This record gives sequence, structure tokens and C-alpha cells, in this order.
Amino acid sequence: MKLLKERIRREGNVKPGNVLKVDMFLNHQIDVELMNEIGKEFKRLFGDKKPTKILTIEASGIAIACITAQYFNVPVVFAKKAQSINLDGDSYTTKIESFTHKKVYDVIVSKKYLSRDDRILIVDDFLANGCALLGLIDIVKSAGASLEGIGIVIEKGFQSGGKAIRDMGIDLKSLAIIESMNAETGEVVFSDED
Amino acid sequence: MKLLKERIRREGNVKPGNVLKVDMFLNHQIDVELMNEIGKEFKRLFGDKKPTKILTIEASGIAIACITAQYFNVPVVFAKKAQSINLDGDSYTTKIESFTHKKVYDVIVSKKYLSRDDRILIVDDFLANGCALLGLIDIVKSAGASLEGIGIVIEKGFQSGGKAIRDMGIDLKSLAIIESMNAETGEVVFSDED
Repeated sequence: MKLLKERIRREGNVKPGNVLKVDMFLNHQIDVELMNEIGKEFKRLFGDKKPTKILTIEASGIAIACITAQYFNVPVVFAKKAQSINLDGDSYTTKIESFTHKKVYDVIVSKKYLSRDDRILIVDDFLANGCALLGLIDIVKSAGASLEGIGIVIEKGFQSGGKAIRDMGIDLKSLAIIESMNAETGEVVFSDED
Repeated sequence: MKLLKERIRREGNVKPGNVLKVDMFLNHQIDVELMNEIGKEFKRLFGDKKPTKILTIEASGIAIACITAQYFNVPVVFAKKAQSINLDGDSYTTKIESFTHKKVYDVIVSKKYLSRDDRILIVDDFLANGCALLGLIDIVKSAGASLEGIGIVIEKGFQSGGKAIRDMGIDLKSLAIIESMNAETGEVVFSDED
């Protein structure tokens, strides 16, 4: 997605340790116009899958999921990190390790909001080692729902998550795949595969 | 807001300890159509304030903020809970205590995304004791920005937060104000003031 790649080139900030900061438009300040372009693109890519729900994980995934859901006319369900006293015990749970926060989280979705009749489109902001996504995939499987596809805004193509998930036969599409990035020069090289 | 109150009556779940669960449409599963009606109502209530940014706090606030921002054509900034290695040190921070999670959080907004030129509309899902909002108000003041108003989806009118914030002279509007609720009968009584 050309608009997104231009935005990453212009406003993304490459930090040591393979960290790409896109705080300016994606995960601290949110450019809602850009989110709408992302939502339209996901609709183009996954519209024929006719999802019944869009699943994501808090926090930045919620912005992408809600704007995207408007193009599909379906509700959003967001997985919660860590146990909350406001959630019933009757939940699907899995554990994931966050690359960003270097922590292990419990990830929870109430059984009320995912069923075997659901056709799920997962969306999220980043894909790196894939831990968060593997957790969400696990939850969709536990619910007996059908996983129709995964839409990612930015994939770090030099990390293993994308390959692992595509090797599972899952229809994973990323709007920008980064082949390499350099914290010293700030340069970001995109793959041609997206 | 009639549509919202009907929804709370029909799908809200009153739990002991003054907990109102609205997981079905607001903070686990999200009804994006309802969010759009909420966004339009905030535009009607605060449109003349001409905010330059909408500020909220992760996680469920992000959904409301992003959909609402579409009616104002402005970006969203969401405050983050707890320190993240992906944030610069150059941030406004404050501490808040969560009623839901019984924890104290650090709340952080990067200085890059709030300035003295900004006119801020704060939106959030719940107002109870007001701790989260007081934290956000504190951050807006630290930035020297102008706080134009606060839009809340559900206010627990029997808790002290609403009065405290209105007494500060802040233009706080809640789309549904709960006067009382009963965990045994499930009954929710709304105030006429909203």
C-alpha cells in the first residue's frame, strides 16, 4: 500500500533493536484518515471472505479494527491482555509474549463473543515474531470459528512470524512488509511482496 | 441518548460492587454502528468547540475516540498505561488508580502529540470516581493545551467523579448518567440530567 509506505518512510523512526516507531500516525497518535484508507484496503483484500466479526487485540489494534469494521458492517471483538475482574470466567485464554514489552500476557476472549458460526478476520498493527497472532489464532481455533484471513498493517519481514503463519496455510496479507531497516541511517527497505 | 440507554437496559449486566458490564457492545465486543451514533452525538454536543485533537486512554476509549474523530476530522491521541520501551522519555506522565482493575497505573502521553496550540476534546467510555479523567486533565494542563470539553459514554452518577469535574468548571457531558443500579434485580435507573 503505497500511501502507507510513504508515511512510514516520512514519519517512521527506526530505533536500535529492530524497533520501528510509528507513534505519529498509528500507535499513539492515530491518523484516522489513514486508518480509513487501511480499512478500505482490507475490504478490497478480504471482502469476498464475508467475515462476521473482526478480531484484534488491545490496544492499538482496536483503532484499525473499528475503522475497518465500518467497511464490513460487522462488530469488533478485541482480546484483552491479563485477567480483568469485569470479565466472566467463561473465556478462551492463551498466553503470548510481547516483543515490545518483554512480558508474558494472558490473552482472553469471552466465549459469548466467538462461536463456531463465526467467520473471523483478524487485524493488527504489527507482525514480527507472530506471538500475538499465534495467540489469536489459538483462540479462534478454540472457539471452533473459521479463520478467514489476517490483515496486518506493518510486517517485519525479516522476523519469523509471517513465514510461520503463511506455512500454516492461513491467508495472511500485510499492507507494508519491511525487508530491512537501519537504525543508524533511518533507512527502511520494503519487500515487493506486499 | 435514548438509543444508548435502551441498549444498556437490554444488554447491560449489573454485577455486585457497582459494576456495570457492557461487554456486549462497548468494551469487549464493539458495536461500530452504535459507536457511530455516539460519535455523531459528541459532534452535536461539542462541534462548536472546534477541537484540534481527541484525547482518550487505552483500551476501550480508543474505539470511541477513533469513530468520533471521523466527525471532527482531527487525529486521536491515546494515553498509554505503564511505561513502554517504544515511547521516548520526553512525555507527560501522571498516575491514576483504576476502579476496574484495582491497580495504580502510570499514564503517559508523548510531548510531541500535545502542545499549547491544541484544543482538546477528551472522550472515554466510563466515568465513576473520575481518576482516569483527572489524570488526562492533568496531562492536558501540563501541555498548556486548552481543554474544550469531555464526552463520556456512561457516567455512574452515584459516584463522585462527575461532580468533582463539573465543579472545576469543565464542560463535561455524559450520554447516559446512571442514578442507581441493582445487582439483584438487574435494574438500571437513569438520571434525567443527561
